[in-house]
Amino acid sequence: MTATETIIHGKWVIPVEPHDVVYENYAVVIKDGKIIETIDSAKALQKYTGQNHIHKSKHAILPGFINCHCHSPMSLLRGYADDLALMDWLQHYIWPAEKKWVSESFVFDGSCLAIAEMLRSGVTCFNDMYFFPHITAKAAVQTGMRSVIGLPIITFANPWASDEDDCFAKNVEIFNAFQQEPLLTFTMAPHSIYATSEAGIMRVAEFADQHNLPIHMHVHETDDEVQQSLQTTKQRPLARLHKMNITSSRLLAVHMTQVNEADHEIIAASGSHIIHCPSSNLKLASGFCPAQRFVQAGVNVAFGTDGAASNNNLDMLEELQLASILAKAVANEPTAIDAAQTLRMATYNGAQALGLGEMTGSLEVGKAADIIAIDLEQLESQPVYHPVSQIVYTASREQVTDVWVNGKHLLADRQLTTLDEHELIAKAKQWGDKIS
Amino acid sequence: MTATETIIHGKWVIPVEPHDVVYENYAVVIKDGKIIETIDSAKALQKYTGQNHIHKSKHAILPGFINCHCHSPMSLLRGYADDLALMDWLQHYIWPAEKKWVSESFVFDGSCLAIAEMLRSGVTCFNDMYFFPHITAKAAVQTGMRSVIGLPIITFANPWASDEDDCFAKNVEIFNAFQQEPLLTFTMAPHSIYATSEAGIMRVAEFADQHNLPIHMHVHETDDEVQQSLQTTKQRPLARLHKMNITSSRLLAVHMTQVNEADHEIIAASGSHIIHCPSSNLKLASGFCPAQRFVQAGVNVAFGTDGAASNNNLDMLEELQLASILAKAVANEPTAIDAAQTLRMATYNGAQALGLGEMTGSLEVGKAADIIAIDLEQLESQPVYHPVSQIVYTASREQVTDVWVNGKHLLADRQLTTLDEHELIAKAKQWGDKIS
Repeated sequence: MTATETIIHGKWVIPVEPHDVVYENYAVVIKDGKIIETIDSAKALQKYTGQNHIHKSKHAILPGFINCHCHSPMSLLRGYADDLALMDWLQHYIWPAEKKWVSESFVFDGSCLAIAEMLRSGVTCFNDMYFFPHITAKAAVQTGMRSVIGLPIITFANPWASDEDDCFAKNVEIFNAFQQEPLLTFTMAPHSIYATSEAGIMRVAEFADQHNLPIHMHVHETDDEVQQSLQTTKQRPLARLHKMNITSSRLLAVHMTQVNEADHEIIAASGSHIIHCPSSNLKLASGFCPAQRFVQAGVNVAFGTDGAASNNNLDMLEELQLASILAKAVANEPTAIDAAQTLRMATYNGAQALGLGEMTGSLEVGKAADIIAIDLEQLESQPVYHPVSQIVYTASREQVTDVWVNGKHLLADRQLTTLDEHELIAKAKQWGDKIS
Repeated sequence: MTATETIIHGKWVIPVEPHDVVYENYAVVIKDGKIIETIDSAKALQKYTGQNHIHKSKHAILPGFINCHCHSPMSLLRGYADDLALMDWLQHYIWPAEKKWVSESFVFDGSCLAIAEMLRSGVTCFNDMYFFPHITAKAAVQTGMRSVIGLPIITFANPWASDEDDCFAKNVEIFNAFQQEPLLTFTMAPHSIYATSEAGIMRVAEFADQHNLPIHMHVHETDDEVQQSLQTTKQRPLARLHKMNITSSRLLAVHMTQVNEADHEIIAASGSHIIHCPSSNLKLASGFCPAQRFVQAGVNVAFGTDGAASNNNLDMLEELQLASILAKAVANEPTAIDAAQTLRMATYNGAQALGLGEMTGSLEVGKAADIIAIDLEQLESQPVYHPVSQIVYTASREQVTDVWVNGKHLLADRQLTTLDEHELIAKAKQWGDKIS
């Protein structure tokens, strides 16, 4: 027995896979960043004498949440403009602010703020889409966060790139530059059918095929998007993507609030993943994603927070709860997306969607030690009849006490270990003062 | 100048009335439990030398939230049974558990747990409905919480009363016994049109008229309720209440997820109040209350958490956020129920609904010092462009650091002053162990 194991003991261990199982007084053994065993606590104490035992006696230990859609640097525009119609919001507030302020330093500071916030709500992996993606990548690498970096393709000129060609050239460079980073992978991220050309999307798909990358794209976020496409092409966006062979198990269709029968069939038959962002969809009045219907059809549905400019936080625990209760009302079925299913969607399904199913998303032996501890003894979660119910329906982010990513303890008793909380706040304030 | 003033300084003071106003570096002066002045911080320091100055330099100071619908003792059944169809949930889980376990001690311990939870999410006044209402009243009085105690009238036998006559007799006694409590008022609480007889409702209405009490009632919570009434009487519940002259500015119509044109007109014309409980409505798949439509018609809409068995928490901050974003999606209008309007509904409108409009609900001179402080410097709320947006869309309960009810400091730096947190948790665990 070498002296390098760390054993995390919990009142409960919830592995997610196998599904809907809770082990009491259990432990997860990690070594070299990987899970090597889940075991009864008493046995672990006997077997691993002299090792690093961490006791979380009030806590549930579970896989970290996977935030499948974020624009992390937009944390600096959190609350900059709210309660506005979408195009008013974009045209008169968000786009002008981005044009004026988005830069490498904005992206770095915003990404760090977002990573801190995500860690503090139990996120161990995020899938991003924003300008200067190499800077978000750098922030993720520096902080030890697992990240999936979207390489954006956008038609219009922006502070990072002048057009699709420029995006593409920069993306290839970034893709090559980060190949050695163990915690970082990429998606190709054509923004949407209205902000990326069909030629651009085809080019992205080719690159994605060559390099086995997911395609991360806003699809049917709003009725306007669908109507605009119908007017110009007589086809719905998803139907166009389907004709272009973009719909497949590579596609992360983000939002999908507008779904007719044909759309539903395309998604189900193609194996495309749905990234459901309930807070953002409600706040922007985009519509209601029929999450339960997709789940019943066997579609892999995972969750995203979207950016902080339209949510306005990156709190995955809040997103879990909302997704679960909203699904019941939308399906008119109180049994829809139960607590265990919700937890699975926020972890296991997220990993599947991002092509990381072998790597993370559950507490299985051989997977990375992407683990969180949630304190269920706080009075807001008492009494505990069913730990998974309490996590989904009662817990709030302050109950996430500890987070490990790839075995590294990034949040320890609510303290960030690789980011300076006071510095993050000071920088956010500076940006706020400048921008406001 | 006597030495009895307390001056609470905030980075921001948000009085709610006048509407949508934020004062920076401001203070609220309280004396003998009442607000006597709101004033610039620097001036307050000059004017009130030697007094008790409390500095909340990172905080917004605002009126406490008013939870207009709760079954507080049900906190002990939080998470006992989830993800079930309503009648399965009630008939096979909640009612049997209530029959077996509800007693004076259950109600006292559950009420104390609920009051603690509510204080920790910024609630300074709650409107309750449950068996043994005098015990919830006792818990509220002992802890210094402002309470509005519903006096229930229910047809079926329950652990507290055998029938409506028994309910009524007990309620009259309770009503008389608590007349001298300054922080306690009553509502008459006929459960619903299906669990209270028409004769019982009429009797309640008479008592309410005599004593100037609101009537607190579940109305159109589900489509089943409406269909059942149509089958047995050929009338919708609200139409029946209208014919009985129950609809008026006395009526708190809780839920109202099922609303046709006639219903809408009855509510708007009668001056009835809507108590909107979005989390519970979604979780039980009851439906969507058209909150924005009511607001636009000039109806007074306020919020409730409902009980913890169907929410599953009593977190008013979460309810504010959900109510606001859900209203936008339901109305298909991203400008619906903006942040300032949401905050007003959670405070001022709640007080109006409960007949406490002169007493609480805003930081106006002469009103009770029911005040909360929310830390907006936490990184999840940074940067701060608009404090009210950050409260509604980003803040979570752990940012509520301080709560005063009638000038008494009931939560001080997250510590409860009149309740023992460890004892509450220990008792909740004991109940959980017994019941599970």
